[in-house]
Amino acid sequence: MSEPLSREELIAWLRREGEHRYHDHHRYHALMHDGKLTKLQLQQWVLNRYYYQTRIPIKDAIILSKSEDPAFRRMWIRRIHDHDGAAEGEGGLALWLRLAEGVGLDREEVASCRSVLPGVRFACDGYVDLVRERSLVEAVASSLTEFFAPDLMSRRILAWERHYPWVSQDMLEYFRSRVPRARRDAEDAIDFVARHATTYELQSRCVAALIRKTEILWHLLDCVYAAYIDPGWGVTGPRA
Amino acid sequence: MSEPLSREELIAWLRREGEHRYHDHHRYHALMHDGKLTKLQLQQWVLNRYYYQTRIPIKDAIILSKSEDPAFRRMWIRRIHDHDGAAEGEGGLALWLRLAEGVGLDREEVASCRSVLPGVRFACDGYVDLVRERSLVEAVASSLTEFFAPDLMSRRILAWERHYPWVSQDMLEYFRSRVPRARRDAEDAIDFVARHATTYELQSRCVAALIRKTEILWHLLDCVYAAYIDPGWGVTGPRA
Repeated sequence: MSEPLSREELIAWLRREGEHRYHDHHRYHALMHDGKLTKLQLQQWVLNRYYYQTRIPIKDAIILSKSEDPAFRRMWIRRIHDHDGAAEGEGGLALWLRLAEGVGLDREEVASCRSVLPGVRFACDGYVDLVRERSLVEAVASSLTEFFAPDLMSRRILAWERHYPWVSQDMLEYFRSRVPRARRDAEDAIDFVARHATTYELQSRCVAALIRKTEILWHLLDCVYAAYIDPGWGVTGPRA
Repeated sequence: MSEPLSREELIAWLRREGEHRYHDHHRYHALMHDGKLTKLQLQQWVLNRYYYQTRIPIKDAIILSKSEDPAFRRMWIRRIHDHDGAAEGEGGLALWLRLAEGVGLDREEVASCRSVLPGVRFACDGYVDLVRERSLVEAVASSLTEFFAPDLMSRRILAWERHYPWVSQDMLEYFRSRVPRARRDAEDAIDFVARHATTYELQSRCVAALIRKTEILWHLLDCVYAAYIDPGWGVTGPRA
């Protein structure tokens, strides 16, 4: 039975495990940021990633339902508003659909999610399952990839402006809006995890939940890579 | 295979089944409204009912997580705000704790839920389970007891002002706040149920969910009645 880590040790551990597994290192992102994606490849990333986006308010509502504390719920409910908006056409999901139009996709096609790759669907549904099945503190820990999101978003905006100038600047609003929000959300979440993961066993489970989350994000890109950049003999199905 | 009922027929069916099973007919409410509850009996209703109140934002977050539609979620999320409030001390749960103080209970004792009767807990947890296990439209249908809530709240306010004048008027704010909100919420919910229960089978399941919900509310009062008004040989446990 190990002693629990200190707050600082736990945060350092989470950062260490999350950082080198974060999908900013994935080769799909490397190609994107180097301006080497074709229009189709950029589109398919936007289309498939939209399914992930649609899972976010759902998993956040599950997290909300796991808390007995109105103060926690008041903090977490903002995330749902961020994605759903206050009215039709507002919020992160609507911004993502504008981005989809900006890269030349049909809005309804993207919104229907009917062309999402099966493996992308498995991974994103796996995220919702993870949040449903694990404890509240582990579910919150799985959100801590947001630690690393602001840097990725900032680099993405610069790369898109430089390499894909045919995507108009105001289509990038989703990425811009996420930079301060991801920072705020990550700080709230890490504070919660540090206060509630009070045993070494629970701390380890929080790290495991974060690692699983990085695998989900990574697998999404693996699937899009396999289908649209390197579709070999192992890839089958209508969109390969 | 029956044809689906029309919107009007379905609403009439739901109203009919809900109305005569609604807990305003329960003898605990009859005693309450006739001014025949002792202080202890009024207090124990407030204390036990608080556990039900705490389940509301949780079941509403589960309902939120079942929807794929941002527009539905924007409508439903208001319910969570209604109970949790925008800040510490606001919202329906905080108002209920003020009511608890108003009837002479210890706020922390009530908030801890440690003295809630076992059967009350079973029934309220059963409500959360029902919402988790059934489809979205059935979960929404189970909320339709709100059809009947405004009348009950209005009668309750008058009865308390008349029969329990030692409870100061401003402690009744929760009941006052619920009258317009329950009306709005019930209208939103019935509209959703009428649009989404598109087969007779689904319509029947919605009616069944509403009936189960009336059983939950009824059982809560049965338990409080058994423990505090008619504690006989069949009632055991520390609070009987």
